[in-house]
Amino acid sequence: MTDATSDEWDTTPLGSYRALRASLSTSTSTERPAAVATVTNVEGSAYRRPGAKLVVSASGDSTGAVTAGCLEDSVADVAAAVVDSGAPRTERFDLTNDAEGVWGMGLGCNGVVDILVEPVDESFRPAVDELEAKRTVVLATAVASTDPAVAVGDRTTLTGGGDGSPDRVARGRTGLPADVLDVLADEVDSLREAGRAATVTVETDAGAVDVFVDVLEPAPDLLVFGRQRDVDPVVRFGREAGFRVRVVTGRGGDADVDRFPDAHEVLPTRAPDLASAVDAPEHTYALLMSHNFVDDRLALDSLLETAVPYVGLMGPRKRFEEMREAFAEEGTPLERADLDRIATPVGLDLGGDHPSQIALSAVSELLAVHNGRDGGRLTDRAGPIHDRVARD
Amino acid sequence: MTDATSDEWDTTPLGSYRALRASLSTSTSTERPAAVATVTNVEGSAYRRPGAKLVVSASGDSTGAVTAGCLEDSVADVAAAVVDSGAPRTERFDLTNDAEGVWGMGLGCNGVVDILVEPVDESFRPAVDELEAKRTVVLATAVASTDPAVAVGDRTTLTGGGDGSPDRVARGRTGLPADVLDVLADEVDSLREAGRAATVTVETDAGAVDVFVDVLEPAPDLLVFGRQRDVDPVVRFGREAGFRVRVVTGRGGDADVDRFPDAHEVLPTRAPDLASAVDAPEHTYALLMSHNFVDDRLALDSLLETAVPYVGLMGPRKRFEEMREAFAEEGTPLERADLDRIATPVGLDLGGDHPSQIALSAVSELLAVHNGRDGGRLTDRAGPIHDRVARD
Repeated sequence: MTDATSDEWDTTPLGSYRALRASLSTSTSTERPAAVATVTNVEGSAYRRPGAKLVVSASGDSTGAVTAGCLEDSVADVAAAVVDSGAPRTERFDLTNDAEGVWGMGLGCNGVVDILVEPVDESFRPAVDELEAKRTVVLATAVASTDPAVAVGDRTTLTGGGDGSPDRVARGRTGLPADVLDVLADEVDSLREAGRAATVTVETDAGAVDVFVDVLEPAPDLLVFGRQRDVDPVVRFGREAGFRVRVVTGRGGDADVDRFPDAHEVLPTRAPDLASAVDAPEHTYALLMSHNFVDDRLALDSLLETAVPYVGLMGPRKRFEEMREAFAEEGTPLERADLDRIATPVGLDLGGDHPSQIALSAVSELLAVHNGRDGGRLTDRAGPIHDRVARD
Repeated sequence: MTDATSDEWDTTPLGSYRALRASLSTSTSTERPAAVATVTNVEGSAYRRPGAKLVVSASGDSTGAVTAGCLEDSVADVAAAVVDSGAPRTERFDLTNDAEGVWGMGLGCNGVVDILVEPVDESFRPAVDELEAKRTVVLATAVASTDPAVAVGDRTTLTGGGDGSPDRVARGRTGLPADVLDVLADEVDSLREAGRAATVTVETDAGAVDVFVDVLEPAPDLLVFGRQRDVDPVVRFGREAGFRVRVVTGRGGDADVDRFPDAHEVLPTRAPDLASAVDAPEHTYALLMSHNFVDDRLALDSLLETAVPYVGLMGPRKRFEEMREAFAEEGTPLERADLDRIATPVGLDLGGDHPSQIALSAVSELLAVHNGRDGGRLTDRAGPIHDRVARD
């Protein structure tokens, strides 16, 4: 398993999660802990949304981003101060230079961005554990408070909750008061459902508390079945797109880890056993690209036994039709529920036919499917550009 | 300007063109020349199409690919032999292992692939020069012949020809007979129009000649205007997708080449002069991502004076509407022809919002637009997967 090299800018949630986890595993040493900056609120056209993170390690390396680049140095300075003081704090960065708001100049960024900067301490551990187990988790953290009972940084982790009330966990820092969490419950549910983060203001008897509700979803898995060189660009693009990438070579024997250094994991699992390589089926997107008809078919058969929602089969539709016929001839024809999960030809219609372009097309489709989209041009979705958009 | 590192598998036409050019520039030395293998014909479901190339340098490094990986070693052996003999030759690789054809096993490849293997000699120079000048060029090469007057490897380069008859150039090797080229003329026109390569059989008085008509189109340019860190994944994806990537920072002064090592070129050109950074407008796709409203607008204004067919503007549609209003207020409102070339929001609908995902979305759209596609899911385009496809 490898993490991105320090010269590659990893802005994926998975990158941030792994940085947090790495920092926690060294935090018992005398080394300075890491700090993490999280966007909690945005006004105007800021580049990143609530939940975006920048993790700054003790050595100064960073993973993630809270802006397109213009504020990272300023934020890093705040991070260093926070590590020294040990106290979480919020900073507001107002990048609008004139009353008009959207005509920001100078730094190249716009809008108003609120950022929570904190040491990476034990209060993160429950969330890191949940993500490791491929479960969505919610962090509820006070980012402003006029209630004397609540301080900036107070945090409760909400685990479970997919169906029913989540468990409330406080570790390392003071938890939020029960009545605040009660008021938040519905908002938490809808943010969790939408996979979004937002700051919510809660009135209490003694004041008001702004709570940043951060929904952390586990990174999706990209399971690549194949071992030819054309797996390489798929692995690179998949990793950059935020997937945890696992290559399954189908060879048996020892895994050839060095062969795919950009993959998070390399497994030698054979095609008929591919289901055993699936950790969290509902978060897994599979691409079958061994270029071997028999192996691809065995792999497909195995995956269809799991709850994996997407299996992309490289090659023309006709090749799949041959497989479908083989299934039927064996007395186990594919059913509608199976067919709904298969994509072939794989990918979005980009028109390119060399291996990197096929990889770009395939990974783009995976990301679109994961997010419930279908890959068409956004400029067309926003309406005809010839018509003037009504001003808000 | 940088070429891909040797451990990154560059399968883009641009990579092959640059490898050919590099080889020609060293060919006057005593160093062994390179060899190039080109797919000339395919039957069944082979992985790459006619025109795909593998360039093997004298030192054994290779750029490109003629298969997904299964044949590269065999082809490299043939390449070494061809360099020794100096004589072009064709090889047929029959990867079908049984009468059924598509059920190929073992190596993981299918179908029948014909490959032309030749030394990189002066016969390539006219084509390399045309591509350098961003012009499409056609190589017509004999790959089989029962006519004693024509040998395998005989080649005529067809330059120009976009409107009217191309010029016929023979250099380094014997050219094809005029009557063979006359017969081919219509076929060459339609292949050139379609941007495809194919082998065409021509009957002569003395026999028959199979001519491989290879249409080499210049790589498209991706012009990235910006200098924040989010330019990095755009550059990487753009390069892998086959674009020649030029970053324009807008700073003036010296170009910060080290800042964007994966770009083919870095220019410091300022926004109002962006048109001067456009080499071949009809092959250029621009992305404006300085995150600075004033600079992006100046850049847009400059590019609209050229014939660039696509300008993607990062940010919400509303931001563009503000720009549009600014143009109108200055008495130079945008016209329909301008609006037709602008894409905003930029990218395909993949649903992701972190910088690498935005880059994936943007570069995918550029590629789709370059190829006249619109990025929807290919599996939907192939018809409902529930219906059985009529067998050919």
